[in-house]
Amino acid sequence: MTIIDLLEKAAHRYPDQVSIVSGETRMTNKELLDRIYRLGNALVELGLNKGDRVAVLMYNCHQIVESFYGIASAGLVLVPVNFRVSSPELSYVLNDSEAKAIIFGEEFQDLVTSVLSEAGTVRTAICVSKEVSGKILSFERLIARSSPRKPEVKISAEDLISLRYTAGTTGKPKGVVHSHRSNVIAVYNALMDGLDIQQGDAIALSGPVTHASGSMIIPHIVRGAKVVLLPKFDVTMLLETVQKEKITTLYLVPTMIAMILAHPDLEKYDLSTINTIRYGASPISPSLLRRAIEVFGNVFVQGYGLTEGSMPLTLLRKEDHVLDGGENSLKRLTSIGREVTVAKVRIMDENGNLLPPGEIGEIVVQSEQVMEGYWRNPEATAEAFRWGWLHTRDVGYMDEDGYIYLVDRKDDMIVTGGFNVYPKEVEDVLSAHPAVLEAAVFGVPDEKWGEAVKAVVSLKPGMQATEEELIEHCRKHLAGFKKPKSIEFMKELPKNAYGKILRRELKAPYWKGRDRMIS
Amino acid sequence: MTIIDLLEKAAHRYPDQVSIVSGETRMTNKELLDRIYRLGNALVELGLNKGDRVAVLMYNCHQIVESFYGIASAGLVLVPVNFRVSSPELSYVLNDSEAKAIIFGEEFQDLVTSVLSEAGTVRTAICVSKEVSGKILSFERLIARSSPRKPEVKISAEDLISLRYTAGTTGKPKGVVHSHRSNVIAVYNALMDGLDIQQGDAIALSGPVTHASGSMIIPHIVRGAKVVLLPKFDVTMLLETVQKEKITTLYLVPTMIAMILAHPDLEKYDLSTINTIRYGASPISPSLLRRAIEVFGNVFVQGYGLTEGSMPLTLLRKEDHVLDGGENSLKRLTSIGREVTVAKVRIMDENGNLLPPGEIGEIVVQSEQVMEGYWRNPEATAEAFRWGWLHTRDVGYMDEDGYIYLVDRKDDMIVTGGFNVYPKEVEDVLSAHPAVLEAAVFGVPDEKWGEAVKAVVSLKPGMQATEEELIEHCRKHLAGFKKPKSIEFMKELPKNAYGKILRRELKAPYWKGRDRMIS
Repeated sequence: MTIIDLLEKAAHRYPDQVSIVSGETRMTNKELLDRIYRLGNALVELGLNKGDRVAVLMYNCHQIVESFYGIASAGLVLVPVNFRVSSPELSYVLNDSEAKAIIFGEEFQDLVTSVLSEAGTVRTAICVSKEVSGKILSFERLIARSSPRKPEVKISAEDLISLRYTAGTTGKPKGVVHSHRSNVIAVYNALMDGLDIQQGDAIALSGPVTHASGSMIIPHIVRGAKVVLLPKFDVTMLLETVQKEKITTLYLVPTMIAMILAHPDLEKYDLSTINTIRYGASPISPSLLRRAIEVFGNVFVQGYGLTEGSMPLTLLRKEDHVLDGGENSLKRLTSIGREVTVAKVRIMDENGNLLPPGEIGEIVVQSEQVMEGYWRNPEATAEAFRWGWLHTRDVGYMDEDGYIYLVDRKDDMIVTGGFNVYPKEVEDVLSAHPAVLEAAVFGVPDEKWGEAVKAVVSLKPGMQATEEELIEHCRKHLAGFKKPKSIEFMKELPKNAYGKILRRELKAPYWKGRDRMIS
Repeated sequence: MTIIDLLEKAAHRYPDQVSIVSGETRMTNKELLDRIYRLGNALVELGLNKGDRVAVLMYNCHQIVESFYGIASAGLVLVPVNFRVSSPELSYVLNDSEAKAIIFGEEFQDLVTSVLSEAGTVRTAICVSKEVSGKILSFERLIARSSPRKPEVKISAEDLISLRYTAGTTGKPKGVVHSHRSNVIAVYNALMDGLDIQQGDAIALSGPVTHASGSMIIPHIVRGAKVVLLPKFDVTMLLETVQKEKITTLYLVPTMIAMILAHPDLEKYDLSTINTIRYGASPISPSLLRRAIEVFGNVFVQGYGLTEGSMPLTLLRKEDHVLDGGENSLKRLTSIGREVTVAKVRIMDENGNLLPPGEIGEIVVQSEQVMEGYWRNPEATAEAFRWGWLHTRDVGYMDEDGYIYLVDRKDDMIVTGGFNVYPKEVEDVLSAHPAVLEAAVFGVPDEKWGEAVKAVVSLKPGMQATEEELIEHCRKHLAGFKKPKSIEFMKELPKNAYGKILRRELKAPYWKGRDRMIS
């Protein structure tokens, strides 16, 4: 089975079911598969060969779905790019993946054009736009003139489907390689656990489908359900969509749930169709959950996963979201739940021993849903899979009932509004500023974003720079969510005996009184 | 993921849940895994090497489950044997599979002993019995003295898990090879489609778990549900078990459903816990379904599958079991339903073309749930998988909504009481009788068994034999369900121009007035 087989099954079984809604466009499974195959054939005709990488940079829209699976249908490898990408980041991703083509939205024309001269291997640029110029090809024109028959490329479960860049601990993003099989198993996972998708159900996706939200597309299509794509997270737009499209499922981060509950006209909308709200990236606070259950009922399911392991690896189910005031139930709310059927999730010490309940160690995973490895990085792959288990770099423990609790992250990764930020990457950008001597970046608790990026900086002797100036410097070089929300200046950063900056010592005061250093 | 991983997950997540009930024995997941690993280690210590075949011949009991997965945990390959096996059949299976060991119930001591001298490769015989003699080892003694730790044999998804013999069209049974992966996908299939298994649910298995019933064991264990094993199908025993164990799921053939409904004391039992009755092997008649729904409610799900493709490939769901008197609903009841998520099921012509709705052809399948191939039979494997699809040898068509209807079987296979009988095998046994010149065997409609095995025989000039004598001859050489229920004598059997016996011409009159030649 490949992801394309699953799309074919949907077009076979629910041919006239509307599966994609995007702006004014409503597309049936049959129409979707037609456009996917046309794009696949166009890419083959453009000279792309099996295994070639194709980058995609778009806001959520039907064309991004067509691109994801058009690329897969031609045996090519998707490189999804976060729409918040900066010019140097895009350049790095295109070069490292040796992408042969890029498909992008018209909003990104300037960015892509500026980067293409540095992206040596990109031969083909395809834009979703009415007007294209120069060497850029029109997405719609390619679709119009291609064959709607299944591309004649043999694909098997072992073939690669995607190369996803994730910020690495060393500062440079690493490419995470997944196969058709791991994607198909993740679909089975979604259908088996946590989501009971029925024909006619509808999910609204306002988070970028280049990320975790994308994992919801195929499970819904396979079941004859509808995927409504929203270009961005806007509370009013989302509430209107829920009412208009009779949305049954939302996929959010707690930040978004809080924003929805704070909307002044919330009670004017009919939200009664919602039966499931999947959230992730950080736990939900009891006070937020209390308000949320009043509005939505007990529809909450938390999922935990990571790019390397797919979504989800553990689930905190509806029946675990209990607000009876009991100590046990309150504690459960801070858990990431229990392992899903397709995965074994355990706690491991530094020597490869699996730990008993209560003991703290690294969370490790075995599943056919996990990645093949890191792109052209056998050392990092071996490191990630030591003792035969995928190491998540999340630190936690398991209770007697199999519920897992996060305690910390090995690499100080910050999760802000559902996105991952690695301190090292931001520190490298700050340190590149002419006035900066040293920088330490870490997450601090934030009511709205879960965690906010914070920097502490020391300046070179005799040099000057303001907080605004340094934040603006970061904005130019990094995706927006990575830039510090605030910067403090210190004469000298605390260091250990070997001269290593003590990031944790700077971070600790902000987390005082909490039982963990992440949220 | 392997099947052993799934058992380990169950023991991890629901350690104290009773998962196996067998006679007076009630076993938790933890205890079950302990005994499985002990048996696995015992087999390794007995000198069995990864990939070696181990036959199992028992009535349903907890030891058969321990054997299935103890064998798998040691990286060995299970050869399940139908308890109705005859001595020559057992001898054939042991020799063809080159089994190194056999594990059997005490009821089969004489049979196994008589066969062992001809089964050249079998070095180890293990009996589930209080007393064993000679070279036969005691199952319990092996378990008692072995380690309960996971056997140190590396198993991966690609490794073989079973070799199941299925009567072949050529008369000799063929070995169907499955891997851990196909078994795991079949478990995901059960959890995704057709069965909504919850913790605390209970299934009663009265059909032999060496056959289709066995596919229900792991899905229930994985979900923290209970499997109640009954040694044989006995209506009173089953009804008492349903009441006592609060059974939620039954796995039957329509013959059994009819027998339950005919039980004189049916209304004395509390059957209200039953929420699903899975049936297969033949469709349910509207009159039988009407009575069944009155008693059980609409709890019926039909599954279609075959040894080569695992169970199920298609499902006729509860919502398809509609008795509104409409022509469409009545027709649906004769369908085998629609493809499951893990499989593509289509209709193909003789030249490898997939056929549109309404056209009759062979039912073909693509799925990771299908077999690896036939044991040491690359020709038969290539034939079964021509054009990349598993050929089921069932002939049918699909309607516009994807429902599939069986019309015939390519090889005249007979399905009687849920078991498959191939005419050629029975014809060969009949022809071996000294008085028999030629024999034709086929299925005729039977109220109780769906189909009954019927033979037409011509005798050699001057020779004599009675119906009873020939049936008795078959009983000696074949499993009981394969012997003809009735035999007619003809002076000469009808043949085509090439001298081939026209089995279908003999069969047709019995099926007159029906829209298909199978039931």
